[in-house]
Amino acid sequence: MSKKAIVFLADGTEEMEFTIAVDVLRRAKVEVTVVGVKLKNSTVAECSRGVKIVPDVELQHEGQSWNANDYDAVVCPGGMGGALTLRDDSKVQQLVATFYEKQKIVAFICAATIVAKSSGIPGSHKVTSYPSVKDDLKDFYEYVDDRVVVDQNVVTSRGPGTAFLFALTLVEQLVGKGIADNLKSEMLLTAKLE
Amino acid sequence: MSKKAIVFLADGTEEMEFTIAVDVLRRAKVEVTVVGVKLKNSTVAECSRGVKIVPDVELQHEGQSWNANDYDAVVCPGGMGGALTLRDDSKVQQLVATFYEKQKIVAFICAATIVAKSSGIPGSHKVTSYPSVKDDLKDFYEYVDDRVVVDQNVVTSRGPGTAFLFALTLVEQLVGKGIADNLKSEMLLTAKLE
Repeated sequence: MSKKAIVFLADGTEEMEFTIAVDVLRRAKVEVTVVGVKLKNSTVAECSRGVKIVPDVELQHEGQSWNANDYDAVVCPGGMGGALTLRDDSKVQQLVATFYEKQKIVAFICAATIVAKSSGIPGSHKVTSYPSVKDDLKDFYEYVDDRVVVDQNVVTSRGPGTAFLFALTLVEQLVGKGIADNLKSEMLLTAKLE
Repeated sequence: MSKKAIVFLADGTEEMEFTIAVDVLRRAKVEVTVVGVKLKNSTVAECSRGVKIVPDVELQHEGQSWNANDYDAVVCPGGMGGALTLRDDSKVQQLVATFYEKQKIVAFICAATIVAKSSGIPGSHKVTSYPSVKDDLKDFYEYVDDRVVVDQNVVTSRGPGTAFLFALTLVEQLVGKGIADNLKSEMLLTAKLE
């Protein structure tokens, strides 16, 4: 059975981090559902640099038109505006906390590592983030400056320039290193990702 | 006055190549207009891996709600489905040909280098592309396997893994190397892009 992943989308989400995660996971045959969170215009998100993206479903319809229990991973893209929306949304916090407890993958890139903290991911974990939110995180987590950090089921990364490595790491975790390596070649990424 | 760029969007466009071009150019304060081409659903493009993106304007309204003469560059993203639509659209061909003749930047990534050929960009140019369309191009152009090729006002590149370098090269051409270098640092891209 295919692995399934949720990728959140809010107004102000960083569109490169979002798109690279969705696209690379789908290339790996992971079934991705784009879940809109508190969009001002419920049919389309206005991303951080103005790219307008339409979600597949909305978070508020969870349990009705779709069910979070069906998924193996949740991905929170960065972009400060989008990350703040995710950080403060109680349904996001609840979903991330539940995935963490069930040992499903919880993944955060760029500013979105603040969502890990607001969702109650314990401070014992090793994480990274975009440098601008490091001060909010470094006294609570074991903070490192690596491009991607995998600590049990918690995966974190730093920004647009680490988004391919982040997405390929999620592919590796969900469906294996062989498929990740094939995608790296297909997408013409050089060996120098890290 | 700000530089202005058109980025085309069609059904089947590679969403990472599209989004990286738009986002990075906008970070550099280039005014980008996303121009939809022959979308089945006129309000939204279904990209190559299912990401749904809304254009700013439609190509068929050129000369009415917006004017191509106002722009300094045109960017054609890849994705085979989208590239074929661009290749065969007479308005795209005409716009690209006019930009080329006026020595504005004409830029193609991945499969979209086939649009250069259909638009009449002369065979004297040095180009690259995604490997799958190399055979269509190599006898007509001086074909090279470099990650990004700048030959006068014709800029070409290879695929998702070269999209950041492609976008930063366009930034360098439009607004200068200093701004491109700052963005590279802001986006946490390593030195090893090429």
